[in-house]
Amino acid sequence: MTLTALCPGTFDPVTNGHLDIVERAARLFDRVVVAVVENPSKEPMFSLEERRQMLKESLSHLENVEVDSFSGLLVDYARDRGVGMVVKGIRAISDFDYELQMAQMNNQLAGVETCFIPTSPTWSYLSSSLVKEVARLGGEVGGLVPDHVLERLRERL
Amino acid sequence: MTLTALCPGTFDPVTNGHLDIVERAARLFDRVVVAVVENPSKEPMFSLEERRQMLKESLSHLENVEVDSFSGLLVDYARDRGVGMVVKGIRAISDFDYELQMAQMNNQLAGVETCFIPTSPTWSYLSSSLVKEVARLGGEVGGLVPDHVLERLRERL
Amino acid sequence: MTLTALCPGTFDPVTNGHLDIVERAARLFDRVVVAVVENPSKEPMFSLEERRQMLKESLSHLENVEVDSFSGLLVDYARDRGVGMVVKGIRAISDFDYELQMAQMNNQLAGVETCFIPTSPTWSYLSSSLVKEVARLGGEVGGLVPDHVLERLRERL
Amino acid sequence: MTLTALCPGTFDPVTNGHLDIVERAARLFDRVVVAVVENPSKEPMFSLEERRQMLKESLSHLENVEVDSFSGLLVDYARDRGVGMVVKGIRAISDFDYELQMAQMNNQLAGVETCFIPTSPTWSYLSSSLVKEVARLGGEVGGLVPDHVLERLRERL
Amino acid sequence: MTLTALCPGTFDPVTNGHLDIVERAARLFDRVVVAVVENPSKEPMFSLEERRQMLKESLSHLENVEVDSFSGLLVDYARDRGVGMVVKGIRAISDFDYELQMAQMNNQLAGVETCFIPTSPTWSYLSSSLVKEVARLGGEVGGLVPDHVLERLRERL
Amino acid sequence: MTLTALCPGTFDPVTNGHLDIVERAARLFDRVVVAVVENPSKEPMFSLEERRQMLKESLSHLENVEVDSFSGLLVDYARDRGVGMVVKGIRAISDFDYELQMAQMNNQLAGVETCFIPTSPTWSYLSSSLVKEVARLGGEVGGLVPDHVLERLRERL
Repeated sequence: MTLTALCPGTFDPVTNGHLDIVERAARLFDRVVVAVVENPSKEPMFSLEERRQMLKESLSHLENVEVDSFSGLLVDYARDRGVGMVVKGIRAISDFDYELQMAQMNNQLAGVETCFIPTSPTWSYLSSSLVKEVARLGGEVGGLVPDHVLERLRERL
Repeated sequence: MTLTALCPGTFDPVTNGHLDIVERAARLFDRVVVAVVENPSKEPMFSLEERRQMLKESLSHLENVEVDSFSGLLVDYARDRGVGMVVKGIRAISDFDYELQMAQMNNQLAGVETCFIPTSPTWSYLSSSLVKEVARLGGEVGGLVPDHVLERLRERL
Repeated sequence: MTLTALCPGTFDPVTNGHLDIVERAARLFDRVVVAVVENPSKEPMFSLEERRQMLKESLSHLENVEVDSFSGLLVDYARDRGVGMVVKGIRAISDFDYELQMAQMNNQLAGVETCFIPTSPTWSYLSSSLVKEVARLGGEVGGLVPDHVLERLRERL
Repeated sequence: MTLTALCPGTFDPVTNGHLDIVERAARLFDRVVVAVVENPSKEPMFSLEERRQMLKESLSHLENVEVDSFSGLLVDYARDRGVGMVVKGIRAISDFDYELQMAQMNNQLAGVETCFIPTSPTWSYLSSSLVKEVARLGGEVGGLVPDHVLERLRERL
Repeated sequence: MTLTALCPGTFDPVTNGHLDIVERAARLFDRVVVAVVENPSKEPMFSLEERRQMLKESLSHLENVEVDSFSGLLVDYARDRGVGMVVKGIRAISDFDYELQMAQMNNQLAGVETCFIPTSPTWSYLSSSLVKEVARLGGEVGGLVPDHVLERLRERL
Repeated sequence: MTLTALCPGTFDPVTNGHLDIVERAARLFDRVVVAVVENPSKEPMFSLEERRQMLKESLSHLENVEVDSFSGLLVDYARDRGVGMVVKGIRAISDFDYELQMAQMNNQLAGVETCFIPTSPTWSYLSSSLVKEVARLGGEVGGLVPDHVLERLRERL
């Protein structure tokens, strides 16, 4: 069988921590679908199209990775795509508590399984919101995001 | 003496996890007062009256349970009702950290004690906000809330 | 009905943190049974009889508190005594994780409920094993245990 | 490619919680190798052969699951078997903290990845050591382990 | 060398828990700079000037403590002041998770080190936001903040 | 004043994670005393003298660092040395819970303060016991400990 893993997220913007997880998932599974959540409840810094574009640019070297997007329930999207497994990076205890709740809900709703891959220690402190906060205050986030994301952050701010 | 336990909450809306806690409290204590917090700082989906109504409908089979509501400080309400013990369901570590802080504040303010009852594993992933989020995105929350709550959710969305 | 709470523990020896929990339980419930676990898997510093004696001396001022002991399963003892509720003090996250596991097991085995009462912040760092460790190394544990326990610790060491 | 997941453990004895994880892994991956750790540092209740036997009996209905055992480092065994991914069930925060440390060490030592699958809420309180402790004290562990494991526990105790 | 510790915070308003940390830092280090974050993302109850004033009034008895304020990145302010060490009080696990992330980011951005000092158990449940919430609902927060802060809270509400 | 920080530990053996903490403490404070606990309750792999020797060899390049050892209570040793501050590296939540308890006890016993410095993410998974476990099973721990410690580990095993 072909094993496809779904990596959902807001990716506003993609960080080196996200890329680390996707690259590792791409080695473990036959196919990885990185799915950008439209997520109307948060006010994103980048549009859905920009977030997709940044991911595509960052992941073009991986042949078995596809970038897509969805609105609505993750489990509905997973069913439409015929994917039964979500892969999430996990950094810290506080991540775990929330993600465990979501995983159990998704399992209850539609039998979707969630696998957690620990984030590399190098990126354990990294999140999109922290990157944006630092960049907004004039801090240097080179090395935390890909260069083309850095440029977009500078343009936006 | 008559032991009354106070179960405060927003109950927006009541879930099967809440009912599990109230039913167990009703077996442990002489009397249980389920008290809906008016809670003006959050924008509830259901009005105070609707939330009370849903609780009453869900708990009418328990003779020693009363549904009430309050605004202001929990400890003031507890003193007005002559109740010295709050009972809270607790699902996860993140609950515990916050609830412990509230419990110690309430004890310092007015000597009110808090007892934590662990949520049944079956409902460990369940919360009112997750139910609303899933329902908003078109997900099936039957089995997570009582049927009459399910109907109200459908009407509202 | 008469509400009896069971406070089980090794109490090797009883500390001021234990007494704080029992005193608060004695105000909340009609009756409290403090039950010393024989606990053959740990090598206690004090014999079962000594541990009971120290508890009795410490709790003699509370009319609705009884000191007892048991071997075997907590849920069997609870059933023999006709008690359906265990009360445990809880200090920290690490306590909570373990105690939650025990509570859910006891509920599954025999429908016994567990209520957690947060330890007073004053005693949040206190445990029988830390008291023994400090006392063994010559540290001053006056103020952490009742005076008569302090004397027994000095005799023993 | 063929995706094999390695499920290592002491399995002393296998519980329904372990079986839940293995069954879910068997649906997600092409092949699952359940590998019993010889683990000389702990004194197991059952011999390596007994633990293997109990797993085989419990998992015989799953065609893509193999039961094996190993001594030494997990990463050496994984390399010998040509498997790059470990799958672990995860129940609670305390599990997570320890397992995360092991996962990062195994990744550093040999590039082995670890995926964590959350235990079903139904079994969240269950562990081999708790089962043994309850059984030793005469408690009823039927429903927590397969029937043939229950028999072996009764013979042993 | 002269060791200066930086104690940053919103201090909206300063509580007895904050003062406990600053007083202990003032005993440990040669010099302490308490730095109020302007923090435009939150809507503070008190203006920057009021927050500074309350801190100055509360800390005037400590000769080696200076009250200042800053906007922008903490690490930029630290560099401008020539300070390489941040000191933060830490109350609970949830604090720790977030603060650890910030500490590692600040270390990565500019080599700034963070030392965590555990809050005194007496103030473990105390936070500025909880104080404001209780005060807004008419609760008595005397004993949790200095008297002059209590007056300002009463005027404001 | 001269600020001395005390870094106590078993150091059985010293790892690169320990060295990271001591080197950072040596930049922050005037003087650092690394104090090996004799610790008779654990059976160490290396004798007190060996553990001191490995630390000295690893830290000889730092002029303001002294290696010492002590038996008995940490707070007694701190008082004898005239040091009022302990510095501990902290890796994870589980560390924090235990270390917080010790810090509050040491503060209660003798007014000794504890500062926690977060371990570098690079070494977040590293501990002496894990190094020994891996080395015992034939794993490669080069890169996790200094070279001279690696040699001693090989001789011992």
